[in-house]
Amino acid sequence: MGLHRSWVDRANVPDCPFPLNNLPCGVFSTGADAPRCGVAIGDFVLDVAALEAAGLLTLPDGPLLDVPFWNDVMEAGPAVWTYLRDRLTALLAEGSAERKAVDPFLVPAADVTLHMPFLVSEYTDFYAGRHHAFNVGTMFRGPENALPPNWLHIPIGYNGRASSVIVSGTDVRRPWGQVKGPNDDAPRFAPSARFDIELEMGAIVGTPSEGPVTVAEADAMIFGYVLLNDWSARDIQAWEYQPLGPFQAKATATTISPWIVTRAALEPFRTPTPPREVPLLPHLQEPGPMLYDIALEVGLTPEGGRETIIARTNYAEMYYSAAQQLAHHTTSGCPMNVGDLLGSGTISGPEKGSRGSLLELSWGGKEPFPINGGSRSFIQDHDTLTLRGQCKGDGYTIGFGDCVGKVIPALAAPYAR
Amino acid sequence: MGLHRSWVDRANVPDCPFPLNNLPCGVFSTGADAPRCGVAIGDFVLDVAALEAAGLLTLPDGPLLDVPFWNDVMEAGPAVWTYLRDRLTALLAEGSAERKAVDPFLVPAADVTLHMPFLVSEYTDFYAGRHHAFNVGTMFRGPENALPPNWLHIPIGYNGRASSVIVSGTDVRRPWGQVKGPNDDAPRFAPSARFDIELEMGAIVGTPSEGPVTVAEADAMIFGYVLLNDWSARDIQAWEYQPLGPFQAKATATTISPWIVTRAALEPFRTPTPPREVPLLPHLQEPGPMLYDIALEVGLTPEGGRETIIARTNYAEMYYSAAQQLAHHTTSGCPMNVGDLLGSGTISGPEKGSRGSLLELSWGGKEPFPINGGSRSFIQDHDTLTLRGQCKGDGYTIGFGDCVGKVIPALAAPYAR
Repeated sequence: MGLHRSWVDRANVPDCPFPLNNLPCGVFSTGADAPRCGVAIGDFVLDVAALEAAGLLTLPDGPLLDVPFWNDVMEAGPAVWTYLRDRLTALLAEGSAERKAVDPFLVPAADVTLHMPFLVSEYTDFYAGRHHAFNVGTMFRGPENALPPNWLHIPIGYNGRASSVIVSGTDVRRPWGQVKGPNDDAPRFAPSARFDIELEMGAIVGTPSEGPVTVAEADAMIFGYVLLNDWSARDIQAWEYQPLGPFQAKATATTISPWIVTRAALEPFRTPTPPREVPLLPHLQEPGPMLYDIALEVGLTPEGGRETIIARTNYAEMYYSAAQQLAHHTTSGCPMNVGDLLGSGTISGPEKGSRGSLLELSWGGKEPFPINGGSRSFIQDHDTLTLRGQCKGDGYTIGFGDCVGKVIPALAAPYAR
Repeated sequence: MGLHRSWVDRANVPDCPFPLNNLPCGVFSTGADAPRCGVAIGDFVLDVAALEAAGLLTLPDGPLLDVPFWNDVMEAGPAVWTYLRDRLTALLAEGSAERKAVDPFLVPAADVTLHMPFLVSEYTDFYAGRHHAFNVGTMFRGPENALPPNWLHIPIGYNGRASSVIVSGTDVRRPWGQVKGPNDDAPRFAPSARFDIELEMGAIVGTPSEGPVTVAEADAMIFGYVLLNDWSARDIQAWEYQPLGPFQAKATATTISPWIVTRAALEPFRTPTPPREVPLLPHLQEPGPMLYDIALEVGLTPEGGRETIIARTNYAEMYYSAAQQLAHHTTSGCPMNVGDLLGSGTISGPEKGSRGSLLELSWGGKEPFPINGGSRSFIQDHDTLTLRGQCKGDGYTIGFGDCVGKVIPALAAPYAR
């Protein structure tokens, strides 16, 4: 399947992240207008809320698009997802008879502000990258005991904090927390000195469930994917995480990219998970390819400096897919809701330059890595971290939009009012 | 401060759980009526939604009470909480001139169905009972290493699953999950054979926050408290919880009692946390008594059998208060929202009969304990577990309403459709 040509010229350029094949879902505003649903095409945002108001889109129980979130569309169900994609494809296709009617609803992308594309119901984060788990396990427990005994049998996950999920472009304030170094007699309360990123993909649940679901059912429940940066304070994490897992170390912020790339747009890029090292129990086995070939990179830009690409990897490195993670999430009968967000876990590849966290890139801070004009072990104040992702099709690209966050200094006195 | 007398006779009986001093907040329906806000008084539920519609309560930006949750009232802020309590106290007080106007809005408690009293935004569970942590730690790591190194310095918490919180009276289906016994070669997928309760209190956040808050500020953010049963599958937990904490073991269900007892009603029962074994860092120190003297008990009733009280303890046994937990929760800058629910952690006392979980009562299943007509290690199908709590004032009682759940058998084939 090649490029679907559009009458929006820029959408036909092979490296444009938003061709007609993509049609990702975002929330935008211009000037003082209220945020509303929009879809990216070429160098424009299509104001689908206005398109719906004008009668060019007819959604059941609408209007569904004049709100600052895509949850209502997700809730409307897969038939509506398909209708919307098919209808927008027809309206924007080269030769469309409706071009003149649609044209006034294109807003230059340069003029819009992007907002959170959906309301996050609950947020779950996983630990499902083989190389990341091995790297981190080796640092803390040695290579012999790197993987916990359960790791090859279940996608290890923990519940995160939905209230901390923010959209790309929002500054991230370095957190305070309780820390205790290995040589300290007692803990102290201090700004995190080992603040880090985690390069992840986020899967968004579009269909609710009650009771256990199969991996195939779980896959069909996913509306789309975003890039996700799970900011992590490693020093806070080291002191707090045993026995019940990360808590405040991961609660400062989680940044997502502004465009939900739908599962439909990703279909041509499906790829299987790597070979199993031990067989999975039947309820977690993949009935088909459930990962996607998404090239990923991380850029680090110091204040006033030049960006260095510090890691390049691929979503296909994951040991477990989002569908497997979601299936595991429901085994206990846990109800899943529209807007639930599942973080893949850090995506690292086998080589040093493919590691998706500074913890791994600097090997626990022991081996600072070079950047343009300096070096880093962990994030410094005013550093900007950017995640990027793309799928390369035949003559076209599926992009996610950058997932950007700048780290600003910790509060000088957190309890001063 | 003694009993506030009401013209609702039953509310003046010393052991009635719902005197004028209490006025807990619930959501009720009768017959086919839509669920709406109600307040318990004596053996009645006061239809405060109807009272507001009749103009006897005037809430800013109202109506706020004709909805099936108390979140809107919480959102309206502490001045509204105080107005509502003062106004209801005046309307229901012995000698009230408005008795005749209010009387038609009393619905016999026997005629109502109770629903979830609020929308749970996010759910966090703690591990903040000294005796519980010591008991569990001893079972798994021996008494020398029972408490993790961080335990006396921070209230250990982890994020739970809000979608699994249910109201008292809802059946709980025994979950399936991946388990692996110490002598098994490989894990298997099976119904939990070690299904358990955790006796807890739940604190409900009524005021949102951004950035770190002090313990005093955190205390003022809490709208009220419920009883909370954190159902736990011990066999699933044992296999999954390292390294990132409990996940599916705790995601089947968490049951809360139907009435939110407000912080205002609990004021006379404030009590300090036990003496510190090591000093806390300043940001976690209590500026005054932050726990409450709430007598708690757990009853177990087999199908067709008689109830046995299997544990009696007190909320005052906790090492950390909800205010301390909430303050810790915000240290990283984690935003807190109206409707966030914080579970205290299991409340066990020092004696065997004061242990708040079957895991502790049966010492990991090794010492089955007697019940009327039998014995138990863990919960059997069709057992009903009931948590109860009360504060004893001078001539009156503050009750929470029972927190009840019956365990029904696991699905025979979880993936059959």
